[in-house]
Amino acid sequence: MSHVEFRTCPANYRHWKLAVDGPVATLTMDVDEQGGLVPGYELKLNSYDLGVDIELYDAVQRLRFEHPEVKTVVLTSGKEKIFCAGANIRMLAASSHPWKVNFCKFTNETRNGIEDATENSGQTYLAALNGTASGGGYELALACDQILLVDDRSSAVSLPELPLLGVLPGTGGLTRVVDKRHVRRDLADYFSTKAEGLGGKKAVAWKLVDEAVPRVRWQEAVAERSLALASASNRLPGGAAIELTALDKSRTDDAITYPHVSAALDRTRAVAEITVRAPDGDAPESMADVYAAGASFWPLAVARELDDLILDLRTNETEIGTWVLRTTGDAGSRARPDSRRPTASERVLAYDGLLLENAASDWLANEIVLYLKRTLKRLDVTSRSLIALIEPGSCFAGSLLELALAADRSYMLFGVFEDIDPDATPAAVSVGPMNLGPLPMGNGLTRLQTRFLGDESALAAVEKRADEPLEAADAEKLGLITFAPDDIDWAEEVRIAVEERSAFSPDALTGLEANYRFAGPETIETKIFGRLTAWQNWIFYRPNASGPDGALRAYGTGKRADFDRKRV
Amino acid sequence: MSHVEFRTCPANYRHWKLAVDGPVATLTMDVDEQGGLVPGYELKLNSYDLGVDIELYDAVQRLRFEHPEVKTVVLTSGKEKIFCAGANIRMLAASSHPWKVNFCKFTNETRNGIEDATENSGQTYLAALNGTASGGGYELALACDQILLVDDRSSAVSLPELPLLGVLPGTGGLTRVVDKRHVRRDLADYFSTKAEGLGGKKAVAWKLVDEAVPRVRWQEAVAERSLALASASNRLPGGAAIELTALDKSRTDDAITYPHVSAALDRTRAVAEITVRAPDGDAPESMADVYAAGASFWPLAVARELDDLILDLRTNETEIGTWVLRTTGDAGSRARPDSRRPTASERVLAYDGLLLENAASDWLANEIVLYLKRTLKRLDVTSRSLIALIEPGSCFAGSLLELALAADRSYMLFGVFEDIDPDATPAAVSVGPMNLGPLPMGNGLTRLQTRFLGDESALAAVEKRADEPLEAADAEKLGLITFAPDDIDWAEEVRIAVEERSAFSPDALTGLEANYRFAGPETIETKIFGRLTAWQNWIFYRPNASGPDGALRAYGTGKRADFDRKRV
Repeated sequence: MSHVEFRTCPANYRHWKLAVDGPVATLTMDVDEQGGLVPGYELKLNSYDLGVDIELYDAVQRLRFEHPEVKTVVLTSGKEKIFCAGANIRMLAASSHPWKVNFCKFTNETRNGIEDATENSGQTYLAALNGTASGGGYELALACDQILLVDDRSSAVSLPELPLLGVLPGTGGLTRVVDKRHVRRDLADYFSTKAEGLGGKKAVAWKLVDEAVPRVRWQEAVAERSLALASASNRLPGGAAIELTALDKSRTDDAITYPHVSAALDRTRAVAEITVRAPDGDAPESMADVYAAGASFWPLAVARELDDLILDLRTNETEIGTWVLRTTGDAGSRARPDSRRPTASERVLAYDGLLLENAASDWLANEIVLYLKRTLKRLDVTSRSLIALIEPGSCFAGSLLELALAADRSYMLFGVFEDIDPDATPAAVSVGPMNLGPLPMGNGLTRLQTRFLGDESALAAVEKRADEPLEAADAEKLGLITFAPDDIDWAEEVRIAVEERSAFSPDALTGLEANYRFAGPETIETKIFGRLTAWQNWIFYRPNASGPDGALRAYGTGKRADFDRKRV
Repeated sequence: MSHVEFRTCPANYRHWKLAVDGPVATLTMDVDEQGGLVPGYELKLNSYDLGVDIELYDAVQRLRFEHPEVKTVVLTSGKEKIFCAGANIRMLAASSHPWKVNFCKFTNETRNGIEDATENSGQTYLAALNGTASGGGYELALACDQILLVDDRSSAVSLPELPLLGVLPGTGGLTRVVDKRHVRRDLADYFSTKAEGLGGKKAVAWKLVDEAVPRVRWQEAVAERSLALASASNRLPGGAAIELTALDKSRTDDAITYPHVSAALDRTRAVAEITVRAPDGDAPESMADVYAAGASFWPLAVARELDDLILDLRTNETEIGTWVLRTTGDAGSRARPDSRRPTASERVLAYDGLLLENAASDWLANEIVLYLKRTLKRLDVTSRSLIALIEPGSCFAGSLLELALAADRSYMLFGVFEDIDPDATPAAVSVGPMNLGPLPMGNGLTRLQTRFLGDESALAAVEKRADEPLEAADAEKLGLITFAPDDIDWAEEVRIAVEERSAFSPDALTGLEANYRFAGPETIETKIFGRLTAWQNWIFYRPNASGPDGALRAYGTGKRADFDRKRV
């Protein structure tokens, strides 16, 4: 395997079947045992690896764009007696620590995406557990709005990670059990130590599932409940489906290129230089034009390209620890008073405006905004240092400004590069409506709210300047950027910031960034990525789990794990 | 060192000086370089180890009880040019992973206690940084209500852990910088990578400190501000100081015993059997009696004994992974309708009642409730499995019921042990006002609110039964206990629960418990113990920090750490 690709489409699925019947879609998990992404394990009992989850992610995405008529998605299994056995243990035991952690992160994002579809897209997920759901299988069900479990005296839900593997459920299970489903914490404790789990009435009484349904009534109950969910859905109307056409991507050893996004990989400096291009043309007038443009509509295209790039770099380029974020718009020169053509920033704000005007009434506008939101959230939980560079010719406006606000730091050139282009228009950033609500982080706040946590007046001052191009002096004063060196200091300051980052402990940087990026309130999402992931990282890494005598390695060998019993 | 003792008193301090001048106390850190708790390092530059922090903890506690007149506490240094250099690096580099983590936990609890004194006791802490505060030194300052830094062009505050040591600040620094002091996250990022830190006006502008004071005005500024804080204090009135007399404790290899609390240590089963005794006598009538009883007043004595026991077991008995919690009250036999003597549970509720009646008007009543709160919080963050056993003769009422509510699970005998004492009064639990507000967990909720998260009606049903002795059937129905086996099943069920716990991965249990105990909202406190600690556990454990070529080991050797650059 040279590198992992996240691009796929239903015609290429090996593990999932997608069937649509009116407002109800059914996603059936039927994992090909021999279809593992990496050699060395069989995907028995509907267990999954990254490859299986890439298909699930693709299906969840496509349902939103390619099946606007769908209002309920039933997640079920194509196997007898088993819904899903969770992440494949042999795969986990054989994987490196970074692989395991990255795999968990991606699966978490997909499950959060399922919840986002339920909450914000009017596509409500129903877990139809026609057999046992254990570990990650039950965690997948927990991401659904409701859970039906067949009541046949053998099917159960379980979190056997702790008793069998000496690790935690890695995809939000603990958090969702108590914080989403409100299972009482002492019952949750018992449940999570009982490898065989619970089924039937007790699983319902403990709130682990919503209903236990006898097999004779199963089909009927699933159909009834999915139609009920569909009729309660607030899925927006709008135009016809949009096809998510194959991404135009080229990948060499030192560059990844899409039409609007590119990344130059510098392995020596451990840096990816990422550039996002503003739209060339003006925003369309109406949603009809957006439907006509389909997947080539600039905001949607950018979201898809950025999404794929983030996943690619995270998975395949673990040693590239710093991502430098740039945007490009007009190369334009200083002050063109007689020009009627809008600037690149104005064009981005116009695209944003069109989407926001229609997001409450048109499914496609809504979906594109939600996709932008999820893609930016992916950046927030990416364990790489993010540094935004704001230079003449850049276009950090509205949705693109979020890239700078997501960064750990930003540098904005004060003035212009006198030696290079003394007549250039100095860089400006523009705050727009897209920065003021529609793209919240996982903590429920906008990036601006997080930035100005506890300082309402600073936030108000920024809001007052919305839609205005703000040059470095203003942007610095308003707190929108970190530093504003002039062209004499620029190269040196930026070089030091980037080089320094590569010299620090990558682990400590990951921890630092994970803490600072999510100041403020916590949500199920931040708990999963901040708290649960951190514990899991530690537990996965300890010899009690991953050592030669650890529980992960011992599983299935008949040997008992040999634990260091000291409590830490 | 056979074991670490947390009992000390000002006469024995080696590292701190406590001086009281009317409403202002000054705690001066002046660490004895040769006074390390463990051989092998010198405590240079006011760096600290567990021994130094044990004295700080003692001083903070005693100020609350032995100096009721104190309204402001100034934390400062007895050294020239340095306030505090943080945790000693050689000590950290030489310590085992469990030692480091336990040390960080205790220092965190002390800093949270400083914030609790400021917020709830009317003893406001002022950090008077008469020299550089780096790492844990700055984190200690961050726990204070206000921070003054001398402005002399060399004194600075800094968090050099990441750039110098490849770890995170371990005592809440990252969280407090952004969530308490509201330093902008990108500035915080820069600050935390700049080993030498920041001082003067910039430190003020970035909100890292409250004021930078020229040395000529230093004494005056500290005096002014401390008096201003004292005059704004809401310290309650009441009687004279209470002396926290030496704890009556005996410790053998298999037992730790105090007047009201005892622990039997079973190393084979890896279990500590902890028993807390209800008061023998009735609650006093008035606070005057409480002042007369002083440190022997039952709730205060129990809090102190439990506090010391928790710290002792956590630090010295890391392989004892399960704590079984019992209470004892009346041995009493079934139904004594003509007896006028209150039951043990009634006595506990009366003690609770006396405290709560006076907590808003009397400093001592307030302090005892706060001490109970902090001690129970210590239990919540203890990385041991907690199992409460509720049997005939037990006394889980009011404040003592919190022990069962803090447990991961509870077992309550249904009926009596027919073979042992068929005439015994069946066990009952009693909810009282102490369970309904005054003893919140770190998440800001009571243990009952956390238990019934998202289920208001279950909580209301429990509240309705307040003050009533609830036998097993009722307690189970109300959700106050986990399981209610009868005497035929009791021994076997309890044995399995305890034995099973000892067989699981201790790391996974720690992670599981840390997640389930803190369902619901997050606060600075839960972020520190849940999120930051978990990241720190992981980072501390990785070879990039603690391996032979890791940053912690390389520090001060002139060698550069050799990092595995893969981002996880």
